[in-house]
Amino acid sequence: MSIVYKASPERAGQWAAAFARQAPDMPFHIWPETGDPAAVEYLLLWQPPERIAETFPNLKMVFSVGAGVDQLDFDRLPPELPVVRMLEPGIAESMAEFVCMAALMLHRDMVGYIDQQRRKQWREIQVRAGSDRRVGILGLGQLGQASLERLRPFGFRLSGWNRSPRRIEGVSTFAGPDELPAFLAQTDILVCLLPLTEATRGLLDARLFAQLPRGAALINVGRGGHLVEADLLAALESGQLSGALIDVLDPEPPAPEHPFWHHPRIVMTPHIASMTRPESGAAFVLDTIERHRRGHPIAGLVARDRRY
Amino acid sequence: MSIVYKASPERAGQWAAAFARQAPDMPFHIWPETGDPAAVEYLLLWQPPERIAETFPNLKMVFSVGAGVDQLDFDRLPPELPVVRMLEPGIAESMAEFVCMAALMLHRDMVGYIDQQRRKQWREIQVRAGSDRRVGILGLGQLGQASLERLRPFGFRLSGWNRSPRRIEGVSTFAGPDELPAFLAQTDILVCLLPLTEATRGLLDARLFAQLPRGAALINVGRGGHLVEADLLAALESGQLSGALIDVLDPEPPAPEHPFWHHPRIVMTPHIASMTRPESGAAFVLDTIERHRRGHPIAGLVARDRRY
Repeated sequence: MSIVYKASPERAGQWAAAFARQAPDMPFHIWPETGDPAAVEYLLLWQPPERIAETFPNLKMVFSVGAGVDQLDFDRLPPELPVVRMLEPGIAESMAEFVCMAALMLHRDMVGYIDQQRRKQWREIQVRAGSDRRVGILGLGQLGQASLERLRPFGFRLSGWNRSPRRIEGVSTFAGPDELPAFLAQTDILVCLLPLTEATRGLLDARLFAQLPRGAALINVGRGGHLVEADLLAALESGQLSGALIDVLDPEPPAPEHPFWHHPRIVMTPHIASMTRPESGAAFVLDTIERHRRGHPIAGLVARDRRY
Repeated sequence: MSIVYKASPERAGQWAAAFARQAPDMPFHIWPETGDPAAVEYLLLWQPPERIAETFPNLKMVFSVGAGVDQLDFDRLPPELPVVRMLEPGIAESMAEFVCMAALMLHRDMVGYIDQQRRKQWREIQVRAGSDRRVGILGLGQLGQASLERLRPFGFRLSGWNRSPRRIEGVSTFAGPDELPAFLAQTDILVCLLPLTEATRGLLDARLFAQLPRGAALINVGRGGHLVEADLLAALESGQLSGALIDVLDPEPPAPEHPFWHHPRIVMTPHIASMTRPESGAAFVLDTIERHRRGHPIAGLVARDRRY
């Protein structure tokens, strides 16, 4: 039995070290090295290799190194092979940190102040109380709920929208397409934490922005494919949106001539809002393998039809 | 009996409205208008006028519009006149928000990412766990304690230093000049929330920076006079400090040729970390006047010898 890792080469060493510490007897290979392919039962990957079933005849499970699986080409994966997305606690912790930081930055007008500094302007903008600001989260899964938990102490008025209904103490929740307009109408700072599916691709567009209160702000920590970039530029230009914090793009990295690099109302980060931590990621993988062997229920199993 | 306001003309209207709502019978004048000077019992000010005792013979109390009183020229104030600094809850709330946002920004490498965006670089920096980061606060008064409360849920290792000893649950506390080196040696993100006095002027200097772990970061939300600017530039240049968030300068605004405007490791904001909210500020002033009349104890009374 062995594991093959096929993801960021820069972080391969950290993953190898984490597995060596936690499971010193489990052979761990870094792609393209695989050891005996017949011994490989688990793959930990960002993108699957070609001809996976022929290469690894005894594969039992595939793990995504990230919380999302939209990057996976499911057509390359045997239909019955279980696919598990990373549910290690470091992902939710770093995402909740980042979302809270980003919401505070928009609440405290940091996009404007960063631009003022560039232009050598010293001009205060009146502070508003946290209780005056409405933060709404699209997507109430593990990451959305962890983010709400961090936002709560600041007194923001919190709400959330989810495909299927969720109840969260102290949060106004909305569900399904019918309730999306009501959710948007009461959101000053909108956070996108949705999975990228055919239903959510391009959701952040002119039609959606028009339903937000004038001067609202956007945080996209979902996927680049959620956002229609030209519509964001137009909404910032017209004043319908006042600012945006964008962590994900499609493609990444953006081209040198991409208009977001130098936009005065956009702060852009290189897809770092949440990052799997190899130490807790390895613990999650090992625990899932053990549960699978014993026939116990598994967290993070991807439903192939919904793709998340 | 009347109040005269002598501070930011931009915010005079908001203060007048707040007093009109909360104390419609109390005459409120905006300097240089004073009504009958003999009727003026209270001044709400940033800087006192000349010849205050001669101008207002029946003055009972002076309020600073800010939480600090270092801007006040005490030599212009009659020695027996009580001086009260603003203790309205909005100041602590907005400061705690800002300190938490600033600490998260340094923890999540935002100073570097803002600079990368300017230079069109897309390069991730490995996230560290909150529990890996040590945040230390200089000054454990109302603002320092409120800030620690907001930082707590993120799992940072928290510590604080104060002139006189304080005990705060879950926070390592240090007191007095003797314990300052030990405090600094274990601080990755240093927050200055001290009052500006002769003892603290210029405290943030090369000698202090050298006692922090290499690569530490600075948040100055105290006063510009705490910081020796040339020493900060040298520490950033040498790598002893990795970044700084600077909200206060001396003088403000800084000159157009000031090196902080375009420094790649400094994010600068125009003295907005904490702002008195006129609505809760007026409530504090009116409550204090009432307590003073009844001979009850007063919060925020400034000790003339210590000047805070």
